[in-house]
Amino acid sequence: MTSPSRPGGRTARTREAVVRAAGDLLAEAGLAGVDLAEVARRAGVGRTTVYRRWGSVQALVADVVAEMIETSRPRADTGTIEGDLLENANLVAETLADPRQGALFAAFVGAAAADDHVASLLRSFYDARLAEWAPCVTDAVARGELPEGTDPVAVVAAVSAPLYYRRLTRGEAPERKDAELAAHAALAAARAGLFSA
Amino acid sequence: MTSPSRPGGRTARTREAVVRAAGDLLAEAGLAGVDLAEVARRAGVGRTTVYRRWGSVQALVADVVAEMIETSRPRADTGTIEGDLLENANLVAETLADPRQGALFAAFVGAAAADDHVASLLRSFYDARLAEWAPCVTDAVARGELPEGTDPVAVVAAVSAPLYYRRLTRGEAPERKDAELAAHAALAAARAGLFSA
Repeated sequence: MTSPSRPGGRTARTREAVVRAAGDLLAEAGLAGVDLAEVARRAGVGRTTVYRRWGSVQALVADVVAEMIETSRPRADTGTIEGDLLENANLVAETLADPRQGALFAAFVGAAAADDHVASLLRSFYDARLAEWAPCVTDAVARGELPEGTDPVAVVAAVSAPLYYRRLTRGEAPERKDAELAAHAALAAARAGLFSA
Repeated sequence: MTSPSRPGGRTARTREAVVRAAGDLLAEAGLAGVDLAEVARRAGVGRTTVYRRWGSVQALVADVVAEMIETSRPRADTGTIEGDLLENANLVAETLADPRQGALFAAFVGAAAADDHVASLLRSFYDARLAEWAPCVTDAVARGELPEGTDPVAVVAAVSAPLYYRRLTRGEAPERKDAELAAHAALAAARAGLFSA
């Protein structure tokens, strides 16, 4: 059961099942709910595999984040900043509105508050996402759509902020109209030069 | 030790110490860290008092939220929407930048993800705060500063959102410049009519 096999084969399937189970437990009960034996049971793999390949809750959570980064959608390139920001807003809103994913992000935020390692993993996720989408803004500046010196990360973060705020503080799933408002509000502020140095 | 006394006397001091200790534990270790016996020890009161007057973690957490609502600052009334939103943004930023308060909000968000009762308490806090500050926007509409039909709650929420996003997803304390940007970005969107029906 624990012998490695070809890429995409049993080893990959084991990792996928274990990471999925760890994410499910995190979403359901927070960091305190992630127990290696329970992860093994839910993933349908031997405890020995989980203890040998991951060995700690930290390592499991790191792989949950790595998997979130790997499976994230690439930046949009619609040709306009409005189109790109709308796609970004819809992606974030759909992710947060998904019951499992929304709960997973809320659990991460809660866990990060009490655990520096989780906080650092969570920041690495957002760094990766901001780096992926920031070129939408630099492209828009190059096309003359936004003022010179517009901070790309600030614009992309401004799109996400109201959607996260809604989900995290009120437990409400953002809807399509919330996504559209988030994109247009960020765009209005960017056009007004509020995100330029 | 447990006999009630006059308002503002021993009973009030006991409540204050217990609620403070419960909030400290919540900020340090999340909901799982709130233990009635430990709360009593930190508050310097008898366990019997805590068990008899609160009896459950839920009741303690409800009082932490009640205290947050009671001690929140009233709305600003500077005479302009820009002034009012800047005061609101500074208040939110200072609260989230405070190590204990910032950790407390992050812990609440994490706990709300896994506990419907905490989620409902947290919503009651935000409902109270939004209701307190919404008149800044209705006053501004009456003064002709913002378009008719501007949604007051949406504007106030838009000021908070980037400050919470920064604190919750990146663990970064919002600074004064972040507060100013949050207020001005919300104002730009409101003036552009994005928050009107």
